[in-house]
Amino acid sequence: MSALQNDRLIRALLSQPVDRTPVWMMRQAGRYLPEYRELRAQAGSFMNLCQNPELACEVTLQPLRRFDLDAAILFSDILTVPDAMGLGLYFEPGEGPRFERPLRDAAAINALTIPDVDTSLRYVTDAVTKVRQALAGRVPLIGFAGSPWTLATYMVEGGSSKDFRHIKALAYDQPALLEQLLSKTASAVTHYLNAQIEAGAQALMIFDTWGGALAHDAYPRFSLAFAEQIIDGLIRERDGQRIPVVFFTKGGAVWLERIAQCGADALGVDWTISLTQARARVGDQVALQGNLDPSILYAEPHVITREVERVLAEFGHGSGHVFNLGHGIHPQIPPEHVQVMVDAVHRLSAVWHE
Amino acid sequence: MSALQNDRLIRALLSQPVDRTPVWMMRQAGRYLPEYRELRAQAGSFMNLCQNPELACEVTLQPLRRFDLDAAILFSDILTVPDAMGLGLYFEPGEGPRFERPLRDAAAINALTIPDVDTSLRYVTDAVTKVRQALAGRVPLIGFAGSPWTLATYMVEGGSSKDFRHIKALAYDQPALLEQLLSKTASAVTHYLNAQIEAGAQALMIFDTWGGALAHDAYPRFSLAFAEQIIDGLIRERDGQRIPVVFFTKGGAVWLERIAQCGADALGVDWTISLTQARARVGDQVALQGNLDPSILYAEPHVITREVERVLAEFGHGSGHVFNLGHGIHPQIPPEHVQVMVDAVHRLSAVWHE
Repeated sequence: MSALQNDRLIRALLSQPVDRTPVWMMRQAGRYLPEYRELRAQAGSFMNLCQNPELACEVTLQPLRRFDLDAAILFSDILTVPDAMGLGLYFEPGEGPRFERPLRDAAAINALTIPDVDTSLRYVTDAVTKVRQALAGRVPLIGFAGSPWTLATYMVEGGSSKDFRHIKALAYDQPALLEQLLSKTASAVTHYLNAQIEAGAQALMIFDTWGGALAHDAYPRFSLAFAEQIIDGLIRERDGQRIPVVFFTKGGAVWLERIAQCGADALGVDWTISLTQARARVGDQVALQGNLDPSILYAEPHVITREVERVLAEFGHGSGHVFNLGHGIHPQIPPEHVQVMVDAVHRLSAVWHE
Repeated sequence: MSALQNDRLIRALLSQPVDRTPVWMMRQAGRYLPEYRELRAQAGSFMNLCQNPELACEVTLQPLRRFDLDAAILFSDILTVPDAMGLGLYFEPGEGPRFERPLRDAAAINALTIPDVDTSLRYVTDAVTKVRQALAGRVPLIGFAGSPWTLATYMVEGGSSKDFRHIKALAYDQPALLEQLLSKTASAVTHYLNAQIEAGAQALMIFDTWGGALAHDAYPRFSLAFAEQIIDGLIRERDGQRIPVVFFTKGGAVWLERIAQCGADALGVDWTISLTQARARVGDQVALQGNLDPSILYAEPHVITREVERVLAEFGHGSGHVFNLGHGIHPQIPPEHVQVMVDAVHRLSAVWHE
């Protein structure tokens, strides 16, 4: 495969010097783009897009045709893994993801097996390879997965949840059983991410979207420990190049010192903490990725530019910063506003790397 | 009105010594109680319950008949204030609260007036007086309101929101206009809370349910500043008795040092931080109220007891702790589990006050 022409993302995630701050966006391939909506309408469903490597590749590349981003991220969904574990993923219109067979008892959790990635998730690794070929070294490709805790919330609740009723009851009543589920899921995710590396992914991100819903003493036990299990099992070098890993717990700012010890090269950070503070709290253990409030992209261009400048200044001088939103881009954001943000990062970040 | 026989709540909120830790629950009068569901079915709607002082009084007292709680909290809703400001509150079945006339432009915000509490919110103050009479000094009555930021999210979005799209666009594009709305709302809330004190409320709580959705630099500007405006304007003593004020920002643990300076006597704390840490971070500026994860009440009795013990131990010795959940009780919790929690606080807390 082609050598990397733009390695800013890789270097920044490894806290190595760069000429300007690299920028990409969580959910950069998605609904805010009219060309995405068009392709999705043609495909008939979200899962048809994910499961067709040609279409997943095309969607992955769409934002890179519009914006001078420093990374591509595979278009897929975190719930591909529990689907491959046999839970029966489907989407209820207007309701989000659902599982036909949620896990509610010991029998269901005991019976769960770790999927053969080469067969049941082949559509994902095929898409990774296609994207790598299509990118031809322009920018690196990020592979990703959900954290075991975040995946388990869907697997136990059967879909999205506000109060995480069933999984929290499991956590408090039968913690060993939940740990069994989380450990199996961590093994499945480890195989899945390593398969993405083998197929061509050049950096990895683990999304812990719901870790912030846990109590302070439950978070390290039920979320962080299993992210660590994954990170311990990942291929960290490929063709002589280190594969950086980013771990992101939405709502985890209060626990940042502890999260910084998880073994990841970088942490995702949401907008509830300034990068000045975040950097002071994690020291040089990890790079940081973030953290513009996605809602700022609703604002006028001069406000977006000012807020980009603020985030860059909050991180300050030196390496170890990847510019991103603090969470996924909202579907109603005008693409022109993304252009303003990307341009501002390009124009305003070089001064922090002199 | 009758003298207070059980003043543990008042004393603990003022960081004065008590014999055991007082306990009450956010949303203790509500849907998890079958007698509440029965009364609500008879009343026809949630707002009929709120707006009828006899019914609101009855609902307020229901949990006190079952459990040996150390406080009553008025049964009402935070959205009574924007409703009185003319926005037209209604409830869409299964969809939560909605406003007929959300505020989306300068004309609507300029036209907004501060309601006359004595007429438009008389049903609330009448309920306060009735509850005080019915309690006959058994425990103190807590009055409450939403924070201006939290109320404004509903007023601008027109109902509940996931991404706070319209209000955040307002915050970034027209901050002075949003501040005008927040300041008017703060004035309305100040009058409202003072009227509750005049009617008999013996402690106050301000709920900032959505403050945690703000960016670190937006929170002090758009939420905390207007909570401070309210607190500055409150009657703090009545009949020689200090009226304690509790301020609670859900998701605010990361900003706790700053919040502790808001002028409140106590802070509500959610379950993302241990009370040991919270206490170390706020020092002796404020008492703390919290912070059991409400989901723990789904667990078995012995687990609930163990977790109550943990929360008490995390706060440790001395005064300044009111036991509570870290957020409102969920509607599906069995009332018997609440009994287990309340009994455990009674039984296990005395040792921390010796």
